[in-house]
This record gives sequence, structure tokens and C-alpha cells, in this order.
Amino acid sequence: MSLIVAKFGGTSLANPQRIRDVAARLVAYHEQGHHLVAVVSAMGTSTDDLLKLARSVNENPPARELDRLLATGEQVSMAIMAMAVEARGVPAVSLSGRQAGIVTTGAYNKAKIAEIRTDRLTRALDQGCIVIVAGFQGITAEGDITTLGRGGSDTSAVAIAAAIHADVCEIYSDVEGVYTADPRVVPRARKLESISYDEMLELAAAGSGVLQMRSVELARNFGITIHCRSAFTNTPGTLIREETQMEQAIVSGIAYDKSEAKITIRAVPDRVGIAAEVFGKIAEASVNVDMIVQNISEHGTTDISFTTPISELRRLKPVLTATVARLGAREFIIDETVAKVSLVGAGMKSNPGIAAKMFKILADNDVNLGMISTSAIRISVVIEGEKVESALHALHTAFGLDSDEIFRETQLSGEELAAKTAKGR
Amino acid sequence: MSLIVAKFGGTSLANPQRIRDVAARLVAYHEQGHHLVAVVSAMGTSTDDLLKLARSVNENPPARELDRLLATGEQVSMAIMAMAVEARGVPAVSLSGRQAGIVTTGAYNKAKIAEIRTDRLTRALDQGCIVIVAGFQGITAEGDITTLGRGGSDTSAVAIAAAIHADVCEIYSDVEGVYTADPRVVPRARKLESISYDEMLELAAAGSGVLQMRSVELARNFGITIHCRSAFTNTPGTLIREETQMEQAIVSGIAYDKSEAKITIRAVPDRVGIAAEVFGKIAEASVNVDMIVQNISEHGTTDISFTTPISELRRLKPVLTATVARLGAREFIIDETVAKVSLVGAGMKSNPGIAAKMFKILADNDVNLGMISTSAIRISVVIEGEKVESALHALHTAFGLDSDEIFRETQLSGEELAAKTAKGR
Repeated sequence: MSLIVAKFGGTSLANPQRIRDVAARLVAYHEQGHHLVAVVSAMGTSTDDLLKLARSVNENPPARELDRLLATGEQVSMAIMAMAVEARGVPAVSLSGRQAGIVTTGAYNKAKIAEIRTDRLTRALDQGCIVIVAGFQGITAEGDITTLGRGGSDTSAVAIAAAIHADVCEIYSDVEGVYTADPRVVPRARKLESISYDEMLELAAAGSGVLQMRSVELARNFGITIHCRSAFTNTPGTLIREETQMEQAIVSGIAYDKSEAKITIRAVPDRVGIAAEVFGKIAEASVNVDMIVQNISEHGTTDISFTTPISELRRLKPVLTATVARLGAREFIIDETVAKVSLVGAGMKSNPGIAAKMFKILADNDVNLGMISTSAIRISVVIEGEKVESALHALHTAFGLDSDEIFRETQLSGEELAAKTAKGR
Repeated sequence: MSLIVAKFGGTSLANPQRIRDVAARLVAYHEQGHHLVAVVSAMGTSTDDLLKLARSVNENPPARELDRLLATGEQVSMAIMAMAVEARGVPAVSLSGRQAGIVTTGAYNKAKIAEIRTDRLTRALDQGCIVIVAGFQGITAEGDITTLGRGGSDTSAVAIAAAIHADVCEIYSDVEGVYTADPRVVPRARKLESISYDEMLELAAAGSGVLQMRSVELARNFGITIHCRSAFTNTPGTLIREETQMEQAIVSGIAYDKSEAKITIRAVPDRVGIAAEVFGKIAEASVNVDMIVQNISEHGTTDISFTTPISELRRLKPVLTATVARLGAREFIIDETVAKVSLVGAGMKSNPGIAAKMFKILADNDVNLGMISTSAIRISVVIEGEKVESALHALHTAFGLDSDEIFRETQLSGEELAAKTAKGR
């Protein structure tokens, strides 16, 4: 008998049939004697629909009202899920963020959880109910509704698991777990049985979209095991937890990211503090920068390159124009066709030469490296976007990650695939 | 400068354009220096959509979860309306039933307002905000969301108006006010400038759907003037208030109702207490009965007739079958083709002979009367359903209610008419 927190994403709740399926899963757990808290996202595309509605009356919806609006999506899900559970004769009770005692900071749209007052939740569990909690939302000390930003429901689930000392936090989505590489690109990708928090964080930062970094960080801080699995099968997924194996895999996974652009400022006069000046101005404009490379100085000038999300280019360009003029640099160049490929593995720490091997494999496959950055358990390189597939295949094979089985997209219909590509939380 | 509570029904909020129109109206009031509380229903058909969703996972959704679900409809409206007001540069704040301090009994789906704690609402008004309140909902002392049942948003608005001592409670809908008769049936119907609470209650009970009885009763109890008007024009509507005129109109309006059936139990053995026995059993089955007539006894038996909503027939039939068998009556007959026509007017009290005049007009127009019932300010008769139109026309003309102008359906498009026929609250 365990205490389980199970989080279900919007795709798993996209229509009445799926909601009934999830209810059946919860009831089966209940009948096995487990105590259960289900955390639910908004159904299917409803969050995007609400956003669109908001923008139709106000291009810049006030943050408080937007949170109030978006929070209804999860409140619909929780009530419907409770009804679906009760239809199977098992007592259920839905709790909004407020009722579940999720107290947050007052920063609308990106609130942080300050505290969880679990009295009501644990009381409902003690009464034998399946408790359904609205994800993504909390309440300020003043009683106003807040939302937690992207990935908020995962964060809600892990935070609740920490607060009630759950045995596991299951995160259900439309993928079967964490793979050694994106199986849609590398069909011989292997599902990992388990992975450490640090590796998962590096994979998430490197573009693997399975879990939000924030929830993994929270799980690491509180030692909560996350079980990342599919809502459409009963196959075990991937456990994210503190790894205690004696020998760790050198490379656990390969991630890629095509959402960033590479910017190069050409022929910047090379003097002390020039990088600080460039990136100071960029930071003032609240533009996120990922990798940074400064070339060796030639003839008193240098090139500075960095990567940034393509979505931030609009805000970045005026900053760059002003910077080039002020510093007397030659120009700036934006390349949106690049991709970042990252190897992640806890074993890298104690295995020198992984970077060299990676570079050789890429060179053997005609892939040029634009920029390089490393951490203790990750090596990232920027390459031409069109070479991503061949780079991933070559690295996956060379580092011994290939599975014997070939991945096939699971039983999703066309409509389901459409829902799947819709952004969940 | 007044303190105004303005309630907007679902049709007035059916799409972004209408929401922007309502926001413009609120902002215009604000700029005239009025303090304003807007009470909003759920947008268009969203309540029915949510109900359908609930039934798709549970044929008998648990009451608590259903209230929780339905309440999101008004919460969407209030946030969107606050955004639309803010888009015009006027500060607005949305308050859910909970935040507006609407404390109810714990009877889910049909809660009664127990108390309104207005602190937060009046504080927001004092800060110069337009306050938008979600109608139809409240919260129990334990913090669970409740809904107020059909007509709930009107009730919310009147109750808030009473609690904050508003000067007027404006109820906006898709009709321009209270008419002497349904103008779609009687094009010469006249919009009333004002009408008393009692007359309005009788009209509502007799089938006029403009306002819910509950909100009119509440307004009467607290002396709140209701201004019933159209959200699509600026024409003044009808005031519902305590009439202080010396001479009151004999007949204020004519209502009709085709939603009831007439049931006759034939040849019931006539003995003391027979009616009590019949209607006791019907009451036990929670079936509402409107008019009752017991014929004069012939040969030791009598016929008992009564009217009841057609929607209750399914529950009523087994009761009738059992009753006929137990009492040794001959049979029961159900006639669903009847209609009830009612004359309402405060002046009837002091004008005898109105009933006689009504019966003569109907006879002159070949309309047979099935049943008759009266109150101090109302006379109702049951007639054949197909005679409703000619009866209404004849009575309307004979009692001097005809207008010089001919009513034309207002500027609603086909889509709007579709939304209009959807059941609002």
C-alpha cells in the first residue's frame, strides 16, 4: 500500500473517453489499496482557447484576471475527473489550488509555491477518497488565484508529493518515458529504466521536452522519485531519482534543440570588459542567452557568438543594433538554421575523452561544430540544423545506446496526434 | 452619482464583440461618476456545454462536483469582462462568489444565500474599480462552491444590491422590458414603464419568462428597484418597484404558459378526504401541482383535474396508476395540448367583474375554458393550446392594452437568435 501522487497532462484528458480511461486507472489503484492524489491539467487545448478568448477582448490581459481565467481550465478538469471516478462507485473529491492549500507568492502568471497546507487534502485521503487536485494554480495569502507558469502542473504534483511524503510522483503524458534520444528521430532510441535528477535536468535544459526543469529540481530538493510514464499504456516508464549504482552509464541520453538561433557580433574592438558590456545590455532587455563563445582576438578585434531562443529575436534586434553602433563593431549576423546537440551522462565526470570522441564522430560524419559548451555531465555543440538527424544517429550508435527494437509511434490516431502537438503544461 | 448593480445574462456575453459592448456600457457609467458592480452569467451556451460534458462521464454527476464545474462558467465571464473593461483604461477587478463574500447554505445545485460579506467588494468600489462579480455562485461556510439554481444570477444581483444598498439593480437581457403580453405573439403588446413586485410575481408565476420569481421576491423584501432592460439598446426598460400610484391599471399584463399538462382522474368515489389522499401521494413524489379543480359529485363519484409541468409527467404516471387502482377510480387522462392564460393587474382587487368580462371575451371568440383559478390580482384559465393566440389578441384589445406601435423583433442576427433561444440563467 503506497501513497501515490499521479499527474495527468492535457492530452491524457482531451476528451470524455480519455477522462474515463484515467478514472479507471485511478480506481484500479484504489482497489489495490493505494492512497491516491491525482493532479490534473486543463483538458486538451482549453488553455490555449482561453488565452485566445482573453486576447480577443484585451491584447495585454491584466495578469490577475488572466490567472483567474486560466485557472478555470484545471477546475473544469478536476470536477469532471471526480465525477468520472464517482461514476465507478469510488468516493472522490476535487480540490482547487486554494482548497488544496497551495499558497504561492503573488507573482501572477509565474507564481512560486511558498507553502502547502495539507490539512484538507490529508483529511480527504483519510476518509478513503481519491483526491483530485487542480494543477498549475495556487492562491496568494490575500486569497487571489495565481498560476505557476509553464510546467506548472508538474510542479504542483511534485510539491504535493513532497508535502504529503508520497512514495512516488507519477507523471503521465503521451510519451512512454525518457529515451536515450528522441525516438521520432532515432528509432533505435532506448527507453531508460531510470535516470538521475542531474542528468534529467541537463537533458531538459538541452531540449528534451519530457519534463519541466522546475519540477525535476523540486523533486531533487525533496528526494521525490518521479515516475514518468504514458497515460495510454500500462508499460512502466522511467524513474527519475538519486542514482546509487556503482558504475554509471557514460552517456545516458542525447538531446537536441532547434529552437535557438546563433548570433555573431563581428569585429568587436577587443578591450577589457567588452563581453560584460554586450551581455549586460542583453540582460537588461530580459533576453535569455544560452551558450557564449568569444573568439581569439585578431588585429585588435574579436567575434562574439551566443545562442538565444528564436522567440526572443524580436526583442533582441534593437539591442544588437544599438550595441554594434556604440562599440564600433562591424555588424551582427543571425543564423536561425542551427541546432544544439547535447550528450548527457553522469559517467562523463570520471571518463575523460568523451568530448574528443564526440568531436571525432561528428567530424567523421561531416558535421561542423559551431560552438561548444560543457558541464560536468554534459557536452553541447552547435551544428547546422539539417545535420541533426545524421549527427544523432551516429552518436547514438557510437556511444552504444542503440536498442534491439525499433520504436514505433504508439496507438495515437490522427486526431490524437493533433492534440499531442498542442502545447500542454 | 449612483451606486448601480448591473446584471448581464449569457446572451449579452455570448461572444467577444458583445463582451466589448457591455464593457463600453460599464465604462460610460463609470465616466458619468457612478459606482458600479456588474454581475455576470456564463457566456452564451457554456453552462449547457459543461452540463453535457459532465453527463458524458457520469449520468448522475455528484452535486458538489457539478456546482464546482458549473461555477467555472461565470468565473470565465468575470475575468474576461474585467479584461475588457481594463482594455478601456478603467480599473476593474473580478470577484468570484467566494471573493464577493456570498455565503450560502450547503444545498448544492439550489443553494440559498445566507449572508453577503461585502468588505472586499466595497473596498474595491472605494478604490474606484468597476467590480465584476460572478453570478449564480456562492460558497458554504466550509469553503465549498455552491450554485443557486435557475435564475441564480438575477438572485445574486438583487442580493448584492440589497447588501450594499444600491440605488438600482439593472437586469440586462435580450428583451427590452416587461410587456403587456409576449410581443412575439401579440405584436401590439406595450412595454410597461413600471410594474409592482406583486404583479411581476404573478406574471412570472403565470409563465412570463422575463425575470425569475426568486429575484423579484428578494427585491420586494428589501425594497430594491429592478430595472429590467435590453443589453442591445439604450432604451429604458421596465422598472419593478413598489407602485405608489393612486389609481392602478386594472390589467397590467397577460401571460401564457404551454409547459403544463392537464390531468383528470375520472369517476373517483366521492368521500371525505379524497383530494387530500390524491395530492398527498403526488406531493410525496415531489411533483409540483399548479391549478386544481374538483367537479361536483354525480352518482357518488367525482372528477378531479389538475395541471402540472409536462416535464414531471414521467414521475407522475406511476403515482397516478397506483392511485386509480387504490381508490377504485375509473381512469386518468393526460392532456398535453392545453395552455394557461392569465390576466394580472393590481387594479383587479378593487374592480369586480373582471373575471366575468374575461370569460365573456373568450366565449365570444369560441374559446372553451377548462379550469379557472384566481388570486387577488390574477385570473388564470386553462384553454385549448391552439386557441392561445386568438385568446391573447382578443383579451389584449378588450382590456385596452394595445399599443399604437407594432412590435418588431430587435436587431438580432440568425446566430444571435440561436444564442437567444439557448437557456440562460
